[in-house]
Amino acid sequence: MSNKIVYITRRSRFNAAHKLWNEDWSSEKNHEVFGKCANENWHGHNFDLFVTVKGTPNPETGYSMNFNALKAILKEYVEDPIDHKNLNLDVPWMEGQLTTMENLIVAIWDRIKAPIKESGCELHSLKLCESENNFAEYFGGE
Amino acid sequence: MSNKIVYITRRSRFNAAHKLWNEDWSSEKNHEVFGKCANENWHGHNFDLFVTVKGTPNPETGYSMNFNALKAILKEYVEDPIDHKNLNLDVPWMEGQLTTMENLIVAIWDRIKAPIKESGCELHSLKLCESENNFAEYFGGE
Amino acid sequence: MSNKIVYITRRSRFNAAHKLWNEDWSSEKNHEVFGKCANENWHGHNFDLFVTVKGTPNPETGYSMNFNALKAILKEYVEDPIDHKNLNLDVPWMEGQLTTMENLIVAIWDRIKAPIKESGCELHSLKLCESENNFAEYFGGE
Amino acid sequence: MSNKIVYITRRSRFNAAHKLWNEDWSSEKNHEVFGKCANENWHGHNFDLFVTVKGTPNPETGYSMNFNALKAILKEYVEDPIDHKNLNLDVPWMEGQLTTMENLIVAIWDRIKAPIKESGCELHSLKLCESENNFAEYFGGE
Amino acid sequence: MSNKIVYITRRSRFNAAHKLWNEDWSSEKNHEVFGKCANENWHGHNFDLFVTVKGTPNPETGYSMNFNALKAILKEYVEDPIDHKNLNLDVPWMEGQLTTMENLIVAIWDRIKAPIKESGCELHSLKLCESENNFAEYFGGE
Amino acid sequence: MSNKIVYITRRSRFNAAHKLWNEDWSSEKNHEVFGKCANENWHGHNFDLFVTVKGTPNPETGYSMNFNALKAILKEYVEDPIDHKNLNLDVPWMEGQLTTMENLIVAIWDRIKAPIKESGCELHSLKLCESENNFAEYFGGE
Repeated sequence: MSNKIVYITRRSRFNAAHKLWNEDWSSEKNHEVFGKCANENWHGHNFDLFVTVKGTPNPETGYSMNFNALKAILKEYVEDPIDHKNLNLDVPWMEGQLTTMENLIVAIWDRIKAPIKESGCELHSLKLCESENNFAEYFGGE
Repeated sequence: MSNKIVYITRRSRFNAAHKLWNEDWSSEKNHEVFGKCANENWHGHNFDLFVTVKGTPNPETGYSMNFNALKAILKEYVEDPIDHKNLNLDVPWMEGQLTTMENLIVAIWDRIKAPIKESGCELHSLKLCESENNFAEYFGGE
Repeated sequence: MSNKIVYITRRSRFNAAHKLWNEDWSSEKNHEVFGKCANENWHGHNFDLFVTVKGTPNPETGYSMNFNALKAILKEYVEDPIDHKNLNLDVPWMEGQLTTMENLIVAIWDRIKAPIKESGCELHSLKLCESENNFAEYFGGE
Repeated sequence: MSNKIVYITRRSRFNAAHKLWNEDWSSEKNHEVFGKCANENWHGHNFDLFVTVKGTPNPETGYSMNFNALKAILKEYVEDPIDHKNLNLDVPWMEGQLTTMENLIVAIWDRIKAPIKESGCELHSLKLCESENNFAEYFGGE
Repeated sequence: MSNKIVYITRRSRFNAAHKLWNEDWSSEKNHEVFGKCANENWHGHNFDLFVTVKGTPNPETGYSMNFNALKAILKEYVEDPIDHKNLNLDVPWMEGQLTTMENLIVAIWDRIKAPIKESGCELHSLKLCESENNFAEYFGGE
Repeated sequence: MSNKIVYITRRSRFNAAHKLWNEDWSSEKNHEVFGKCANENWHGHNFDLFVTVKGTPNPETGYSMNFNALKAILKEYVEDPIDHKNLNLDVPWMEGQLTTMENLIVAIWDRIKAPIKESGCELHSLKLCESENNFAEYFGGE
């Protein structure tokens, strides 16, 4: 069964505030480019993050990955630092970045890739949903 | 057909930031009572609001209500003032109130009941969903 | 356990075409009142119908109703006549009526109330969803 | 604000095995009445339970209920005893009863009504979903 | 960050009527092959279209794409021509084609690929959902 | 149109009981590794299986595949043998295997790949959802 790669996805959820604001721009330009997302006093979302890892099922457990290890990583590296937080103010690893779905998904990837690797799994992709109408996906890159 | 009352529900959506914070309490007590919802720098949600009106279908239109009138009311009285806003800072009609689902749903009721009446419909109930796990419902009261 | 009334709901689905059009009106007035729903060549929806019956659980079966009887009634009286049909053209019991959610939900109620009664259940309410944003509810009436 | 009753709902989830089987009946009759649900070796579901309490928002907290108290009650009285369990074999308070949605929802009501009362809330209704097509609701009764 | 490709998806919705009917066949053969979908008087669906574009986040905006440009393209090329329309009768660019999900998804791809390119984005894939049980996906092709 | 490959997905559903248990291990180790999923008396789930086939739309039908053929295959090879069954006890083709999502998705793939091929379609991928938080995907392998 050694070639049978099965992808396993775990959903993680967090509720956060943010705004889209480029400090190098005037208020006018920020509102023009980011529209309602530039509201100075913030807005927020319920985010759904789908984390997909890949692996060959272990004959002893039938698991492609150690699920509890994955859950612990998501709690430590994603949920604890950003759930019920302000993505612009409370999250050191987003400092200096625009808090778009694109930048957030790349930052999450960079945080969890190594710990997932250390636990013996391989991160394959992330899907980050900001609303029922919009989501981002990332498969890594250099 | 005059006794046939049909209830019609329209969903409205808004994304907003807020925090739960009682100004009369210490920071410790706020965190103790409100937990993660007391984060000073705000957090946020995608809110779903379901607005239910009741009426007897008009024989000429088959409608219990004028749907476009209802949509216009929801836009003016709910979506424009709170979508992509901070419920604590940006919404005059929540001033001085804790921004719980309970207080928000009562405040929305009080805002839209009269204009819905004026357009010939009768507001029956509201359902306000803050997440997939929590929602509030309100049927009015004195 | 004789006073313990439990409500049981079964979902039924059908996909149908329709248009909203009052034959007594001009084309202009139809488009003005019904907007996009007045498109002459029809449009359509995936409808979800939730049928709620009430009853006291039978001590021998633990059921408030005979589920198979209910499913058979919904198939015969709702799904077969309107699934993959045109509500304006193919459904004798909607003839001469505007095919709004309001009129359709009342017509379905009138069709299924008696057969449900005959099978020993009591129809309590209907919920008819036309889209994720709009639905109608009906609890009967004279 | 003393008359303003707001209903608050919390979702609880559990995954359980069960079968529908009346010990007083022959195997044939069980299969005839309960169909696939009578499979001797069990089957199972992801259950969603929606617990609705009612109350007047507390002016100091803006809450109709103490949410943490409710969550603790649901964990102790519902989730711990039935999540990842066999409803027929592992749950003393379902002993001797058919494990239909109807009987389960009444049993859950009887278990949580008093502790919710003690915590200062009032249980209003339960909704128990066995699949996307079937659910039960209960509002109490003697 | 130049190699970091993030995929962004926007959902678009439209409600339309259609039927599956091959003009070269007898009525019998059409009903045999297409079943209920061959109803002469049409049926209809709520369609969900997920449009995925790919790009490297712009350092100034944090966006992989100009979201407003994408929304405008979807409105002009997809929603306006087919929402609340008959796919067989009202849509010139489906003329002469069977209105299956397969043909519709390819036709939508061919319409929006160029305008998305002109706005500086790259179309990656489409997903078209006709019901909760059936959907089509397309990644382009010559 | 010969190079235009469209992927078509059909959802299949089944409700089943199972437990995760390695017969070579002590009870302690099983509970340690599999947690609540090791409950001796089983638990269960509503499973959603999404089956994706690929093909070039047939010019005469507009279909990438013969949908009725696919539905018949899913009924015979997946739903009939495992719906309302115990995955550990009632399913010969899972005998001797841990009933994880990973092993189940590979076993389903191995069962349906050939019959789908014989009906002229090509199986592309499977997605098996055990809950709203967890799912597995498989694209084949040797």
